[in-house]
Amino acid sequence: MQGTETPTSPSSADAYTPTDRTVPTRSADRASYDRELVHAILDEGYVGHLGFVRDGRPVVLPTLYGRVGERLYVHGSTGSRPLRMTGQADPGLAVCLTVTHVDALVLARSAFHHSINYRSVVVHGIAHDVTDPQEKRAALDALVDHVVPGRSADSRPGNKKELAATAVIRLDLDEVSAKLRTGGVNDEPEDLSLPHWAGLVPLRKGYGDPIADGDLAPEVPLPGYLTVS
Amino acid sequence: MQGTETPTSPSSADAYTPTDRTVPTRSADRASYDRELVHAILDEGYVGHLGFVRDGRPVVLPTLYGRVGERLYVHGSTGSRPLRMTGQADPGLAVCLTVTHVDALVLARSAFHHSINYRSVVVHGIAHDVTDPQEKRAALDALVDHVVPGRSADSRPGNKKELAATAVIRLDLDEVSAKLRTGGVNDEPEDLSLPHWAGLVPLRKGYGDPIADGDLAPEVPLPGYLTVS
Repeated sequence: MQGTETPTSPSSADAYTPTDRTVPTRSADRASYDRELVHAILDEGYVGHLGFVRDGRPVVLPTLYGRVGERLYVHGSTGSRPLRMTGQADPGLAVCLTVTHVDALVLARSAFHHSINYRSVVVHGIAHDVTDPQEKRAALDALVDHVVPGRSADSRPGNKKELAATAVIRLDLDEVSAKLRTGGVNDEPEDLSLPHWAGLVPLRKGYGDPIADGDLAPEVPLPGYLTVS
Repeated sequence: MQGTETPTSPSSADAYTPTDRTVPTRSADRASYDRELVHAILDEGYVGHLGFVRDGRPVVLPTLYGRVGERLYVHGSTGSRPLRMTGQADPGLAVCLTVTHVDALVLARSAFHHSINYRSVVVHGIAHDVTDPQEKRAALDALVDHVVPGRSADSRPGNKKELAATAVIRLDLDEVSAKLRTGGVNDEPEDLSLPHWAGLVPLRKGYGDPIADGDLAPEVPLPGYLTVS
């Protein structure tokens, strides 16, 4: 993805410490370790892509996730593959969880300079099974609130059977980096007069019109948290 | 992700052959191997998540991609990590490329049945460096046309220097599966009368208003392919 440079954040208590794994080989100027930025990108996403190694081969699966402070949680059926792998291995499962937002298409006059504006976070770490019931409950609340902020307080909490059927793994935010492209078109000076349209095409975000469940009692109103897009 | 079942497609010439890697351990009823469905999901995406193994650990990076028939192409700087790894290894690089669309949030009355409607494709395979100049050029066209269909014909093609600076890897669509959740809320019968709003919240898709580059000559019109959302 070609493009404009985004300033790198300073290394401080408000930033993650870069490691060999989190310093990109290319476009290092687009990397950031700023905690606030990382949290914001994570909180805006719906689905992360969880990578792990199975029989020596990479596997990448989409997954819901939630964040509580400096910890991410991923849940799934106790029978699902990565969650079973976590439980089996005492030292945990090496994972990489990546969250990406595509903000705009960048149409340059030259094919080469086409790009997208995006914001992504890559988290490397060891995922561990969450066994403490209180942590597990808080993690599941965070997962629901991640889909719609405030929703866990407006739904029936999980019962014993549901909690038992759900496995939760946690991943500490420790080895983390953000990468982003912002700004406009980055064409070569000699291409500026070419007759091709150039610019940004932002992608629309937000909620469409909610569709109430057919069994919903008519007196139940649309909650306020769904009217804010 | 809890939810409604989506029928599995038949295994035929129009479908990919399931393998151990592409049959999910859970929610197998949501899996599909239908070629047309897989192509449609891939073609709708902007960014895929490319997983590979580095020093025994998983790495997942967002990447642009393009499709030509039964082949995916990923490009990047010749200096980027996965692309260098592909070039180095004679037998290619084992990768997993996953593309996911989030279509709607599924708000159930119970926390447990919250979910999202999504469509994803997971491609397992060995990525190879593209060295044939003609294939490389076609791949780069496909990458640009993937961002905006028809765009490669309306931009300056890459020159020798640009082509040399760009590495392209290819991944055959062979070991492939789609997984999707569609439909509505899947609450327990005893929860239907709870006072919580339940239903689908679709996510908006499509183009926002294009923002022309500041250097764009005023006589260059907005192309028709950008007015269709």
